[in-house]
Amino acid sequence: MSQTPEESSLYKIRHSLAHILLMAVKHHFPHAIPTIGPVTDTGFYYDLDFKDELKPSLDDLPKIEETMREIIKRNLSFRSEEVTADQARALFEFNPYKKEIINDLEKEGKEITIYYTGDDFFDLCVGNHTESTGEIQADSFKLDKIAGAYWRGSEKNTMLTRIYGLAFETREELNTYIEQQEEAKKRDHRIIGAQLKIFTTSPLVGPGLPLLQPNGMTIRKEIEDYLWSLHKKKGYSRVWTPHIAKEALYVTSGHAEKFGDELFRVQGKEDAFILKPMNCPHHMQIFSDNQFSYKDMPVRYFEPATVYRDEKSGQLGGLLRVRAITQDDGHLFCTKDQIQEEVSTIVGIIKEFYSTFNMMDGYWVSLSVRDDNKSKYLGSDEVWGIAEGALEDAAKANGLNYKRVEGEATFYGPKLDFMFKDAIGRQWQLATIQCDFNLPERFDLNYITNEGKKERPVVIHRAISGSIERFMGVMIEHFAGAFPLWLSPTQITILPITDKHHEYAHKVNSILFDADIRSECDDAKEGLGKKISNVRKMKTPYWAVIGDNEIANGTVTLEHRTEGKVGEMKVEELLERLREEIKNKK
Amino acid sequence: MSQTPEESSLYKIRHSLAHILLMAVKHHFPHAIPTIGPVTDTGFYYDLDFKDELKPSLDDLPKIEETMREIIKRNLSFRSEEVTADQARALFEFNPYKKEIINDLEKEGKEITIYYTGDDFFDLCVGNHTESTGEIQADSFKLDKIAGAYWRGSEKNTMLTRIYGLAFETREELNTYIEQQEEAKKRDHRIIGAQLKIFTTSPLVGPGLPLLQPNGMTIRKEIEDYLWSLHKKKGYSRVWTPHIAKEALYVTSGHAEKFGDELFRVQGKEDAFILKPMNCPHHMQIFSDNQFSYKDMPVRYFEPATVYRDEKSGQLGGLLRVRAITQDDGHLFCTKDQIQEEVSTIVGIIKEFYSTFNMMDGYWVSLSVRDDNKSKYLGSDEVWGIAEGALEDAAKANGLNYKRVEGEATFYGPKLDFMFKDAIGRQWQLATIQCDFNLPERFDLNYITNEGKKERPVVIHRAISGSIERFMGVMIEHFAGAFPLWLSPTQITILPITDKHHEYAHKVNSILFDADIRSECDDAKEGLGKKISNVRKMKTPYWAVIGDNEIANGTVTLEHRTEGKVGEMKVEELLERLREEIKNKK
Repeated sequence: MSQTPEESSLYKIRHSLAHILLMAVKHHFPHAIPTIGPVTDTGFYYDLDFKDELKPSLDDLPKIEETMREIIKRNLSFRSEEVTADQARALFEFNPYKKEIINDLEKEGKEITIYYTGDDFFDLCVGNHTESTGEIQADSFKLDKIAGAYWRGSEKNTMLTRIYGLAFETREELNTYIEQQEEAKKRDHRIIGAQLKIFTTSPLVGPGLPLLQPNGMTIRKEIEDYLWSLHKKKGYSRVWTPHIAKEALYVTSGHAEKFGDELFRVQGKEDAFILKPMNCPHHMQIFSDNQFSYKDMPVRYFEPATVYRDEKSGQLGGLLRVRAITQDDGHLFCTKDQIQEEVSTIVGIIKEFYSTFNMMDGYWVSLSVRDDNKSKYLGSDEVWGIAEGALEDAAKANGLNYKRVEGEATFYGPKLDFMFKDAIGRQWQLATIQCDFNLPERFDLNYITNEGKKERPVVIHRAISGSIERFMGVMIEHFAGAFPLWLSPTQITILPITDKHHEYAHKVNSILFDADIRSECDDAKEGLGKKISNVRKMKTPYWAVIGDNEIANGTVTLEHRTEGKVGEMKVEELLERLREEIKNKK
Repeated sequence: MSQTPEESSLYKIRHSLAHILLMAVKHHFPHAIPTIGPVTDTGFYYDLDFKDELKPSLDDLPKIEETMREIIKRNLSFRSEEVTADQARALFEFNPYKKEIINDLEKEGKEITIYYTGDDFFDLCVGNHTESTGEIQADSFKLDKIAGAYWRGSEKNTMLTRIYGLAFETREELNTYIEQQEEAKKRDHRIIGAQLKIFTTSPLVGPGLPLLQPNGMTIRKEIEDYLWSLHKKKGYSRVWTPHIAKEALYVTSGHAEKFGDELFRVQGKEDAFILKPMNCPHHMQIFSDNQFSYKDMPVRYFEPATVYRDEKSGQLGGLLRVRAITQDDGHLFCTKDQIQEEVSTIVGIIKEFYSTFNMMDGYWVSLSVRDDNKSKYLGSDEVWGIAEGALEDAAKANGLNYKRVEGEATFYGPKLDFMFKDAIGRQWQLATIQCDFNLPERFDLNYITNEGKKERPVVIHRAISGSIERFMGVMIEHFAGAFPLWLSPTQITILPITDKHHEYAHKVNSILFDADIRSECDDAKEGLGKKISNVRKMKTPYWAVIGDNEIANGTVTLEHRTEGKVGEMKVEELLERLREEIKNKK
């Protein structure tokens, strides 16, 4: 029998720590009224109502932590007891929050359990704890921060105090996580994005709608062009579709229902539109404007196209969570027999793309297939069998590190979801390949077989970078702003030492610029030290110093951001070196 | 004293013909009730109410025309008479339409005049006629078509019958226009666009929202890339901005007021947005996120970006009139002293661009400046003087064929509007360069001068192709679908004569494809004649025939769409020829 997430030892440790946190808080703040204390992805928290009396501050956390460690040392055992609703209400007579939960459980006819920690302390709880507090490593957790949180998440309710803790199975894991977080803070793409003038936001434009500065657009264009170069040689064609469409398009596709109130609605004088939540329906229109035959299949469209989701403004941030999302989208229409080869081609593109970004270490792929509840899914067993098989065969043929995950398929077909780790070990779900039996049906798509009959194609959705905005955010943090040469907004800065070196410096700069190198010349009235410090601040990969010697020799003295001094070289040699490195995307 | 358009002889001829048309119609259809008969860009029309009685059909037009010619021959003189409203109402006692007009004129306190043609016929009219009908050349007009039209353009009113006439000063001009129209019909970009699979529309997506097929996207990308290559070498940077923004942005810019009900409004759960009607306000946000100094100026942004206008669906058509308009937009921010040089640079780009498209013959430029009513315009006399002077100097320095047109400036600054003629002589307003003193003020933009003070930059708006959708529509008609090699979706088709030539044909095709030539191979089971006819239908510039000889010699036999057989050549020679021609954009 497989384990549920709640049955894992890490879950039990975190859940037990939530109870221990409450015990410790009550020890120091006896007036605190507990509400709920769940587990999070990185630990646990407890929400408490301190009324208008003394509340804990960050300075109190070490003291509370210390008390928690003492409780752990006492090795108190966890013990459950089933009670009636009336008994539960009596136990929590002075706690309106717990009584509200108890009333709800009673209404839903659910079991009500009390968990004891040792003999004296108890809490209303559904369980999954360690046997005793002693099982927890006392140094594998840390109280993290304090925040306000509304009871049951509603602004209409009381504001409670939430105490967060980090918790892992071992001290090493805790420390790794804390270091990762500290490193992540330094790499925050919002801070680096502003420092390196990659993007900006404006209250006049609105939340979740970043604007790309020239530096950001250079990075975006390089990524888009690279994506296109990978697709072009595999027989994809570019298309272009408008950002709005009538609701009828999304009623036909089913997206109107699926996205519901995440849709942005557009009102004109005569017509009402929707800002597109997906590009697929538009691409279906382009396909069905043709009458393709088996000889034309597969038909492959590529378009970096923007979709819109009305996310809550509180959830938006920088480039990672935006309301206008440019997917490097693509759809291909193929016969059932072509699924495997096409998926293999896409897998090849994904591997090449992520190798270039140094992200293939520690990646894994979820082969998301149906579960036993087959009525949830569209399409015949035969086609599901072919598609799941084709995805798995492609995964095997390409030596992918994949796990078969049942029940994670979409209702319209199975998929491969790719998770990649960034430079500090954080996992990001980025690329995806999805088989779709639904849209061809809904849009009544067909091609003519070699027997002259009409047949439905299969649609394969694929995104390599996922969302280009989010991918750019991830890349800023992955590289901490120090982009590889081919991606760098400025690739090299020419640094004349004094005024008399300006003319030659500008000449070198022009030669590089004309050769499509993103070169700049810093001819400010400043010393070389200051100029180099500026270049370092902008994380420019190369700079070329120019003084008397360089002019006399027709050379530059090249330095690299991390490799230090490269040496003196002829301008042609420099050009060749940069060109080669850019071409190889190193 | 300058002449108003209504005082031109062509206007008088057209206006007189409207009266003559009415006389002729009344002769054949005495029950017709006349309403209005104005002048158009190409002639005139008259709207009449035939009640439920006999209406003229297309077959009646020659007969009516004949009667008109007789009236012209009779050389009747036009004569005006001022009347009171009551007198006018008495004259048109049985005509509710004319009475409505008379009532309006009376309310507005305007003069009411009756125009007589000869002694018996009269019409309510403000005038501007030839002295007599004999001044009109009887063969310089033609009745064109009949259509329905609502009284005063409102669906709530009676549907009238509109009879259109074409009219020019001479028969030659009329014939030229008719031939141009016939040629234009053959070149209709909607028909060619569908035949060559350039774009499509879908009722599910909505009116005015074309989708580009792969062929269309190839053309668009070539145009966009060409535009960028022209800008890049002049120091422009690409930026990227979202398609929506909060209304506050357009209140600040003034566009909310200016575009009023042409705006598409977007409703989200928390925020309301507007689909952008202009890109400028977004670019102002990108500029003001920096603190630039005089050393950074000019700052130049380029973005092919989509704006939206809620045009009436009846006015939409193909690519020429759309609701999502991608401008090859750009804004540059400069000091007053830099205007002339920057305008010169843009003029240079425009000349290079339109020379490439063979559209510099017969172009002209409107230097649109202020008129005497200076209170209509924003900005000091000094800055207007500098800007108008800079535009005119740039026009002169670049040898532009320009006319100074007073009163055609926008309220925010003077501009140069470029009119180009297409292959059949139709004039299109395409490129524009506009100085703007308004937006820098509204967005409180500044740069630091060399004295350390804040100073307002001037903004220059520029668009080279104008709208890329419209430009593509114009280009389809200009080239009648036979695009030059560099723009052609398919540049060459390889035609193996029989099956045994397929392998070599595919090899040649691969060599070309890998060299970035848009090559296709037609290996269908069809004869060479049919294959060539297909290539001709798609207006592909080149095709290369491959048979036994070509395989033996390692060659192809090249033919060109208009130049015919080019001859047998080595594949490398073919590649070189195509590359050179593409590079030169011939």
